[in-house]
Amino acid sequence: MRHVIALDVGGTGMKAALVGADGALLHEARRATGRERGAEAVVESILDFADELRAHGQERYGQAACAAGVAVPGIVDAERGVAVYAANLGWRDVPLRELLGRRLGVPVALGHDVRTGGLAEGRIGAGQGADRFLFVPLGTGIAGAIGIGGTIEAGAHGYAGEIGHIVVRPQGPACGCGQRGCLETLASASAVTRAWVTASGDPEADAADCAKAVASGDPRAVRVWQEAVDALADGLVTALTLLDPRRLIIGGGLAEAGETLFTPLRAAVEERVTFQKLPSIVPAALGDTAGCLGAGLLAWDLLATHPTDPDTRPSDTSPAVPHPTDPRPTDSEVSA
Amino acid sequence: MRHVIALDVGGTGMKAALVGADGALLHEARRATGRERGAEAVVESILDFADELRAHGQERYGQAACAAGVAVPGIVDAERGVAVYAANLGWRDVPLRELLGRRLGVPVALGHDVRTGGLAEGRIGAGQGADRFLFVPLGTGIAGAIGIGGTIEAGAHGYAGEIGHIVVRPQGPACGCGQRGCLETLASASAVTRAWVTASGDPEADAADCAKAVASGDPRAVRVWQEAVDALADGLVTALTLLDPRRLIIGGGLAEAGETLFTPLRAAVEERVTFQKLPSIVPAALGDTAGCLGAGLLAWDLLATHPTDPDTRPSDTSPAVPHPTDPRPTDSEVSA
Repeated sequence: MRHVIALDVGGTGMKAALVGADGALLHEARRATGRERGAEAVVESILDFADELRAHGQERYGQAACAAGVAVPGIVDAERGVAVYAANLGWRDVPLRELLGRRLGVPVALGHDVRTGGLAEGRIGAGQGADRFLFVPLGTGIAGAIGIGGTIEAGAHGYAGEIGHIVVRPQGPACGCGQRGCLETLASASAVTRAWVTASGDPEADAADCAKAVASGDPRAVRVWQEAVDALADGLVTALTLLDPRRLIIGGGLAEAGETLFTPLRAAVEERVTFQKLPSIVPAALGDTAGCLGAGLLAWDLLATHPTDPDTRPSDTSPAVPHPTDPRPTDSEVSA
Repeated sequence: MRHVIALDVGGTGMKAALVGADGALLHEARRATGRERGAEAVVESILDFADELRAHGQERYGQAACAAGVAVPGIVDAERGVAVYAANLGWRDVPLRELLGRRLGVPVALGHDVRTGGLAEGRIGAGQGADRFLFVPLGTGIAGAIGIGGTIEAGAHGYAGEIGHIVVRPQGPACGCGQRGCLETLASASAVTRAWVTASGDPEADAADCAKAVASGDPRAVRVWQEAVDALADGLVTALTLLDPRRLIIGGGLAEAGETLFTPLRAAVEERVTFQKLPSIVPAALGDTAGCLGAGLLAWDLLATHPTDPDTRPSDTSPAVPHPTDPRPTDSEVSA
């Protein structure tokens, strides 16, 4: 069976998968990133992990993978195939595409983790059927992927979508990025955890505990939660005023609170919108496999747009997953 | 000589022009919109004005115009060719494309004024060579046009680019849109005029007078001006954090202050940016003819994408103005 290798490298964990031409997850494996071992060791682990998946696919399907896709955090130069910078992995200018290509012997696509996850949500997840969407995962931090006409807009330098760093509280907390009051400092899962640890006095508490306390009507939790929801609504309304998306797709750990988040969030956005068109606000559909599935889609797109041999001509791959017919830069082609 | 008819309908004045295949302004005429006469009278004036241009072109070039393009303010459904709403013209759901097409007997394209102006700045103005730009005219109000890969992003409902209505001062002045502290209430030419009338005590003073007073070192003017520049920088940094444009193109009446605006504005944006890539900040190149030239480009694009007879096949038009090779919605095709 024809398949590609997909990797999603996170600050704490790595996911690897074999993905079919229809975007199906054929096989998945996870392991710790082990960033404490340093950038070089992490890169070595990525290469080994990919190689193991390659071997598994060869054994299971009796044929080699056609290509590989890898999603990484931080700043990514997808066109040059270089992982430019990632604070949480401590790396700079890692030529990941070349390193993986040499190890695996197949074409490799490199993408930004959140935009790659957004690509998957758009094609096979919560964004299906929406010509314009904004994918916003609320996790340790907050990032965004702008979906336009089947592709993810990466911006002129690969920085587009950084909704977590728009300032919503000018006098707010200092952000790691150097600004104050960034959305990320107020509405990420980490921000809610910090606020709930303080309000509850429980040093072990986290955002999920806060959500449970909200559901059970704890007034302190409701206060903490509503402050995060209000900041999030402010940031989302700014984004939809500029972008006019048809759908807002909210993912990440905080979205696992379900209606405890979505009911007040929809109300807060509706309350703020005046002339703007109100997009639907929906939960992400692919959970934490979005990045890995997106990396698989990048690999299939690579085969469709840059066939490397007669067996990988688009006419032969003919994946069920629609490809963007759009020649504008996709996340796998962004110019830096 | 082959030409198209272009119209740009504003709240106070209308511009009409004959535009060549290379985007050249062959002939231009202006007159008052006369909105005080009511929406129906304005629509009649638009039709008459276009008809006069048609006759002029026929006489001057011995051939009829190939098509027409018209840019209007407010909410525009370019796909259906309907001017949905314009507060300053008091109209609702005017089927302008059909009305003009019937009067002129040629294919007609309808576009949103600012996005149409942005299309012109991008193709033949200050955006040339930039794959990503944001065009922000600072006039009576503030709007924006998001340029991506040769087209203007209109959003899911034709509302994209409304940077004038992102909230930069939550406790700020009430805005006509129903929100408080919109960028438009603080950094438009009208906002600066209001602030300078108050600070100078001169009821006749306007934003241009304020700029002159700033240049001559009047501390009251410098204070008023810097407040507008700071608000503008806050709004622009929010937009570039989300969009990562390569170039910020600032136009409208306020930009006529030249370096009195651009020097402090560049400094204020640089001061705010941390991890974001700093775009170049440049003045618009086409002045108040951008909308009219853009309307002409829409008309030429219409001929290139929807040839109506053997004389208007793209192969025959072969305009020197590059067309977007991009199948995504352009401002003349936005789905509502």
